[in-house]
Amino acid sequence: MTTVFQARYGATQAVDEYAASPTVDVLLSHRSVRSYQDTPLAPGVLESIVAAAQSASTSSNVQIWSVVAVDDPVLKNTLADLSGNQVHIRTAPVFLAWIVDYSRVAALAAEQGIRLHHLEFVESALNGISNASIAAQNAAVAAESLGLGTVYIGGLRNHTEEVIRLLQLPRFTFPAFGMCLGYPTADSPEKERIKPRLPASVVLHRNHYGASFGAEQLRDYEALIGQFYADQGIDKQSWLAQSIQRLRTVESLHGRDRLRDVLQTQGFGLS
Amino acid sequence: MTTVFQARYGATQAVDEYAASPTVDVLLSHRSVRSYQDTPLAPGVLESIVAAAQSASTSSNVQIWSVVAVDDPVLKNTLADLSGNQVHIRTAPVFLAWIVDYSRVAALAAEQGIRLHHLEFVESALNGISNASIAAQNAAVAAESLGLGTVYIGGLRNHTEEVIRLLQLPRFTFPAFGMCLGYPTADSPEKERIKPRLPASVVLHRNHYGASFGAEQLRDYEALIGQFYADQGIDKQSWLAQSIQRLRTVESLHGRDRLRDVLQTQGFGLS
Repeated sequence: MTTVFQARYGATQAVDEYAASPTVDVLLSHRSVRSYQDTPLAPGVLESIVAAAQSASTSSNVQIWSVVAVDDPVLKNTLADLSGNQVHIRTAPVFLAWIVDYSRVAALAAEQGIRLHHLEFVESALNGISNASIAAQNAAVAAESLGLGTVYIGGLRNHTEEVIRLLQLPRFTFPAFGMCLGYPTADSPEKERIKPRLPASVVLHRNHYGASFGAEQLRDYEALIGQFYADQGIDKQSWLAQSIQRLRTVESLHGRDRLRDVLQTQGFGLS
Repeated sequence: MTTVFQARYGATQAVDEYAASPTVDVLLSHRSVRSYQDTPLAPGVLESIVAAAQSASTSSNVQIWSVVAVDDPVLKNTLADLSGNQVHIRTAPVFLAWIVDYSRVAALAAEQGIRLHHLEFVESALNGISNASIAAQNAAVAAESLGLGTVYIGGLRNHTEEVIRLLQLPRFTFPAFGMCLGYPTADSPEKERIKPRLPASVVLHRNHYGASFGAEQLRDYEALIGQFYADQGIDKQSWLAQSIQRLRTVESLHGRDRLRDVLQTQGFGLS
């Protein structure tokens, strides 16, 4: 256990006295996998992953998400093109498109002539993507516990209009994000080690939100993450420069500046 | 393994050939816990839970969430009042408030005179709550694997202005949801059995979004969930009636119709 905690936080964080369980070990060992074997999923794997996703908490049991499992190579390649041309979407045997889905309950309500006024508010989009994310994370954890690798693809929101058309998504749904699924290649775990995170003291507050992190914590984290990239021969900017660049310009939204329009077309009022 | 799959889907679903792991068993066994012992968390538990949350995937490693662990009884009671007066918030030893948090990176960018244009778009709120949800679900899974119980509290979004003030949340943050954390009472697992979900075939689509579910699947699910409530002596409407009621009126948003205004005050443009 100590090893995974140290990999996650570096030597700057004391690692004694963590509560341990085999599942905590699975969770702490997570790394995103971007290099997949050309091997289909074993029987029962997708079924277990979906059952795990459905077992997660879901607001008032309405169950406002769906998942589209894409293994058609042509469709998968097109989705890769639309999601920032990420090669691992092409090579993973299965690409999961996670969908915020109020269409079931909206259609059943419409049969009774009832309109669901929640869909007029930004709350429904936020709660929908929160529910889809909670479910998807259970799927990711289940997959990793079964020896598979995953990586989230936020780029599925780059060109939502085209994704909606390709996946034939009905009204009152929208694509939340994608997830690659498959068996990591032998060199993948070497290349994609456990990535260090900010000190826990930066994200965990007690009773009220305390001061943001200071210069010393930032410097320590830059050293830790810099070493992580250097060990892999990756030339990266500092964490801060990279984070700022990621969020700085409208161009770096890669089309997600149009999400509001697309969601409204899909029936979400966003008031 | 068969037992948890059958509890989740009922006898209508074949349960052979699921891929099994101890962690899949933890995930499938989830139930929300609303009855807690008056016992503080064991040493190391909160640390492991936060480490699990930080180990989850996070967009471009920017780490856009925080968590406020509330154990102050007065504060916890006030948050209970604001979140639909849910008694388990009062009785749980710890209440976690999960926060979408761009304040760190925004403050560091501002020091360099840089404005983060992503924050002007609905994408940043959606991606923020997605990231917070993915982290929180890892926390929930870690907690359950350590013998604790949890329940999500969407009601933390009912009165976000007051929550922001009470937790002293800075600009470029907002409360995503709450989570009770503690040891279940002895009778809790009996009362809160594994809740059946919709058939997997309803939520899982192949390559494109297929037809929504039909009358037969709806009838079977109503029978299954009706029996679940009857077994616990709970008098509930049908799943469909309950789901429609949950989403039907502005009043049933319990204040969440004001989320857009509050998020904009916090610095989120929602364009």
